[in-house]
Amino acid sequence: MAHEDCIFCKIIAGEIPAAKVYEDEHVLAFLDISQVTKGHTLVIPKEHTKNIYETPANIAQQLFARIPKIANAIKEAYRPAGLNLLNNNEPAADQSVFHLHIHLIPRYGEDDGYSANWTVHSDQYSSDDLQQIANEITQNID
Amino acid sequence: MAHEDCIFCKIIAGEIPAAKVYEDEHVLAFLDISQVTKGHTLVIPKEHTKNIYETPANIAQQLFARIPKIANAIKEAYRPAGLNLLNNNEPAADQSVFHLHIHLIPRYGEDDGYSANWTVHSDQYSSDDLQQIANEITQNID
Repeated sequence: MAHEDCIFCKIIAGEIPAAKVYEDEHVLAFLDISQVTKGHTLVIPKEHTKNIYETPANIAQQLFARIPKIANAIKEAYRPAGLNLLNNNEPAADQSVFHLHIHLIPRYGEDDGYSANWTVHSDQYSSDDLQQIANEITQNID
Repeated sequence: MAHEDCIFCKIIAGEIPAAKVYEDEHVLAFLDISQVTKGHTLVIPKEHTKNIYETPANIAQQLFARIPKIANAIKEAYRPAGLNLLNNNEPAADQSVFHLHIHLIPRYGEDDGYSANWTVHSDQYSSDDLQQIANEITQNID
């Protein structure tokens, strides 16, 4: 069901224009107007869900089932050197629109508009530490 | 089918140890030893596929169907402020292991080990430009 004041629900409903790339019963893909790199596309479920935490498995699978073909279409159109998929959940992870969306960001080389900073912490965790962390997560899987 | 010299296929086969978080017939989740942030987890299909381009829709959907429950388990275990999902395809997009994997990176605030740099290019594209890009991608969707 569409949520009032959700800009992506308004795009789905045709109340706000967007440059649509793909659409079917369950999924819509359209260009991110920020165009972090050329061809930067968002893929969203038509059913409103706030973020990955609140997304039922069937909606997650419908969404991701379409992503290889959309990724390949971007690849065919623009021949990027690579492609990043990103999904941000909660403001602390840079989520700014609260309707689940997957960013497809084609990559064209250094300074193309997107990069990630990773700090590796391998030296801070023993095998036992890692196993303990894994166990703490596993205990919370339904 | 397992690929020789694929480190993730060896983890699936039990030939290399890993701190496993979740496992079923189709999907394995285990901690990334780099632990960019605490609880940093990789989710992979058991069937070898190089990256998103080469992933059949059924494998993509099996993979993503499991991600909400794994994300929620990380949330329950560590109460992060947010969570990023990332998937890197080709070396230009930071792919370093050539077996499809989705990073789940819990976020704990500034300087927690991960950040993304986005350059917004909204001012460089008119609505017509965006529609043309969308059309060029759409033409390549099978």
